[in-house]
Amino acid sequence: MATLKLRILFNEAMFGPGKAELLEGIRDTGSIAAAGRQMQMSYKRAWMLVEEMNAAFIQPLVASTRGGPGGGGAQLTETGHDVLRLYHDIVDRALAASAGQICILEAMLTPPGNNDVAEGK
Amino acid sequence: MATLKLRILFNEAMFGPGKAELLEGIRDTGSIAAAGRQMQMSYKRAWMLVEEMNAAFIQPLVASTRGGPGGGGAQLTETGHDVLRLYHDIVDRALAASAGQICILEAMLTPPGNNDVAEGK
Repeated sequence: MATLKLRILFNEAMFGPGKAELLEGIRDTGSIAAAGRQMQMSYKRAWMLVEEMNAAFIQPLVASTRGGPGGGGAQLTETGHDVLRLYHDIVDRALAASAGQICILEAMLTPPGNNDVAEGK
Repeated sequence: MATLKLRILFNEAMFGPGKAELLEGIRDTGSIAAAGRQMQMSYKRAWMLVEEMNAAFIQPLVASTRGGPGGGGAQLTETGHDVLRLYHDIVDRALAASAGQICILEAMLTPPGNNDVAEGK
């Protein structure tokens, strides 16, 4: 079955698969740096995304203490957990609501491993 | 209201907002080059995306005659129109099915123009 990569564009903010994955990494590792590393993301970029998310929402999504080389700790706030749950709920509902149409599209695709034939048309 | 940028990942193919916009441009301009230009995309990249789409589907989405500097013509095939309609249907259904959750997320956002306050937290 196909999967959906879904990005939500608000007036001034954006939330999508990358930020969701970063929040999950922070939840699972307790560290912004470690969460970023799992995604091949620089420490600086991971921090920037966290600061962007914390500024975009009324309540911060991540609570952290900036640490030295050993690293500070970080965890999701209640709002962070809520946002992550809402995002996954949105993706699940989107997929369920469009499964029929996605299935029709899928049936129109060149069968796997058959691209040479299609390109030869 | 928020909008959704939605990318569908199949086993070996991917279809999202960029390809949809390119197809719309081809439909509206009758030219792959002109459609690419509208999106600040190189001629080469626009052609590559069209070839990728034509190979991904059993029937090609775009019928074209490669032209000289004056350019050849291009138009959507019936399959191209079908794929575009299905994609927009998927986005509309996804948005409708998750409107409640998106609304909850939206209510959690820092009000527009209030980012300085949020960053000062």
